[in-house]
Amino acid sequence: MNDLINLSLEQVHALALRALTVNGMGEDHARAIADTITQGQRDECHSHGLYRVLVCVHSLRSGKVDPVARPSVSRPAPAIVRVDAQRGYSLLAFQTGLPLLVEQARELGMAALVIRNCFHFSALWPEVEAIAAQGLVGMAMTPSHAWVAPEGGRRGVFGTNPLAFSWPREGQEPFVFDFATSAIARGDIELHARQGKPIPLGWGLDAEGRPSTDARAVLEGAMQTFGGHKGSALAAMIELMAGALIGDLTSAESLAFDGGAGATPCHGELVLAFDPARFLGNELDAGRQRAEALFAAITGQGARLPSQRRFAARQRSEREGVWVGRTLLDDIQRLIDDPHSPT
Amino acid sequence: MNDLINLSLEQVHALALRALTVNGMGEDHARAIADTITQGQRDECHSHGLYRVLVCVHSLRSGKVDPVARPSVSRPAPAIVRVDAQRGYSLLAFQTGLPLLVEQARELGMAALVIRNCFHFSALWPEVEAIAAQGLVGMAMTPSHAWVAPEGGRRGVFGTNPLAFSWPREGQEPFVFDFATSAIARGDIELHARQGKPIPLGWGLDAEGRPSTDARAVLEGAMQTFGGHKGSALAAMIELMAGALIGDLTSAESLAFDGGAGATPCHGELVLAFDPARFLGNELDAGRQRAEALFAAITGQGARLPSQRRFAARQRSEREGVWVGRTLLDDIQRLIDDPHSPT
Repeated sequence: MNDLINLSLEQVHALALRALTVNGMGEDHARAIADTITQGQRDECHSHGLYRVLVCVHSLRSGKVDPVARPSVSRPAPAIVRVDAQRGYSLLAFQTGLPLLVEQARELGMAALVIRNCFHFSALWPEVEAIAAQGLVGMAMTPSHAWVAPEGGRRGVFGTNPLAFSWPREGQEPFVFDFATSAIARGDIELHARQGKPIPLGWGLDAEGRPSTDARAVLEGAMQTFGGHKGSALAAMIELMAGALIGDLTSAESLAFDGGAGATPCHGELVLAFDPARFLGNELDAGRQRAEALFAAITGQGARLPSQRRFAARQRSEREGVWVGRTLLDDIQRLIDDPHSPT
Repeated sequence: MNDLINLSLEQVHALALRALTVNGMGEDHARAIADTITQGQRDECHSHGLYRVLVCVHSLRSGKVDPVARPSVSRPAPAIVRVDAQRGYSLLAFQTGLPLLVEQARELGMAALVIRNCFHFSALWPEVEAIAAQGLVGMAMTPSHAWVAPEGGRRGVFGTNPLAFSWPREGQEPFVFDFATSAIARGDIELHARQGKPIPLGWGLDAEGRPSTDARAVLEGAMQTFGGHKGSALAAMIELMAGALIGDLTSAESLAFDGGAGATPCHGELVLAFDPARFLGNELDAGRQRAEALFAAITGQGARLPSQRRFAARQRSEREGVWVGRTLLDDIQRLIDDPHSPT
């Protein structure tokens, strides 16, 4: 029986940090990852919470990730901050580049943070939220592994290619969205396959390119994008912007690089920041009020803003801590007690 | 009977130019609009071709558009070029700002062109294609009129809010998409209403917020976004980026400003340009080849790139001229012969 154990956010962070460092991850990487894992657990995005400790350690042991890589920063152009993650995880590279991104966006009006050669497993919302916390508008995108067919096609070319966006709001959580351009997460299809359940039409195609409700057939075929040819166009844009434009791998290249190891994808990431104060000058307040009027027009008719469920969970967790299954805690404890135990 | 008349692209341009100037539009505005109308006719986007001459003249006569407005340029920050269209049409403002946008993107790596106070009726692909013609990556977005409900809502808040993107390709047409974030164009629903035909579920809601196949009921209710909550999030992003961030009207404000006149929407536009040469430096060729490999992986499995039909029409039109219905030509000729004739 899987009891639920109550942990404070500090306990979550300490546990993640310890499990990662004991397993050979450098202190600064482990801290950046523990930050994000704690945010995921806090917001009840369970697949991005403590569960990720297992995934990270598994990925570390695949030997492809450098657990002590030192991100190096360059500035190929005034508006471009480039951080080479040196085959480490992306999060320390992001934290390293963020202050420069913010500085350049404030100086120039907008700027780009290019992260290259990183292993990437995290959601993008913590990053665009970190940008919003500085009063800037954020946008972020990455390729992943080529599992998703273009509209009208039958073979995987695109990754699940998430797009995230944030708009800062005074005195409250930002407007944030973070969605995959695939119709659904790959994990959801895997779950259906494991349970032997059919999936809805629109999630994927079998190996012959036919729309299928058979989860196993779709895992051997290709996933579909959301929104037909429009979602497919967006997915292509993300390959171009966060792959070709930044000199890093497309989803097809990243999948080939993985070579069947099933590790966390290695590729790049593009993050953009826009400074409303520079766009609006002395009209900044009017611009903010205009955004608030938009949000009120949405929520005033009973529709939800994106991320509202996550923010409600956040408030709960900050008040009451989080509840974690004992099985997961036992698995993590085993990684701490015996760094050679299987993941 | 509506015969088709063959016209060269030069004839299309001259006809549009003459009809606009005779009806009081300044020469430089008329030339910018005739350029775009010719591109629309050439690419067989008929609603953006010569037909637009009628719409433009109608809008001119509504008295809201200044037909001789002088766009004024400012630079609120190094990466931001702002053109105030001064209540004129957007296209001259775009042409005025484009060289500065290109210059700043090459200098800084990326830059934004903000167009404010413009009347906007054109597709965005001519603008992102103009950016690609300079070897830059382009992105453009605008709000419109608040006809589209947020996912989970029932009343219009968003415009049809198009998003356009271009990637330059050597020796051939760029990769370009330009799509509305509404499920379908409003004109398509109007056409079904006029013909008394049902529309598919997913296009819109009746006034009570119920999904409806009744085109008239949807025109009195609200349109839907494409792609459910993801398309809805994108539509909100466009309100924020090309409305609140740039200090111009949201789609709700633009609809209120129109006050039932049914004129071309007045609002702003955001155009972004990214310089691959600055992002990639001496890896520019590798980045271009990576993009070409992506395109080949799409077309190699029988899927299409966006805009392919348009480019095929373009080749045909450049070779053989275009075919225009006599009724439309007669209507335009009437506007030339008698500038007081009804539109």
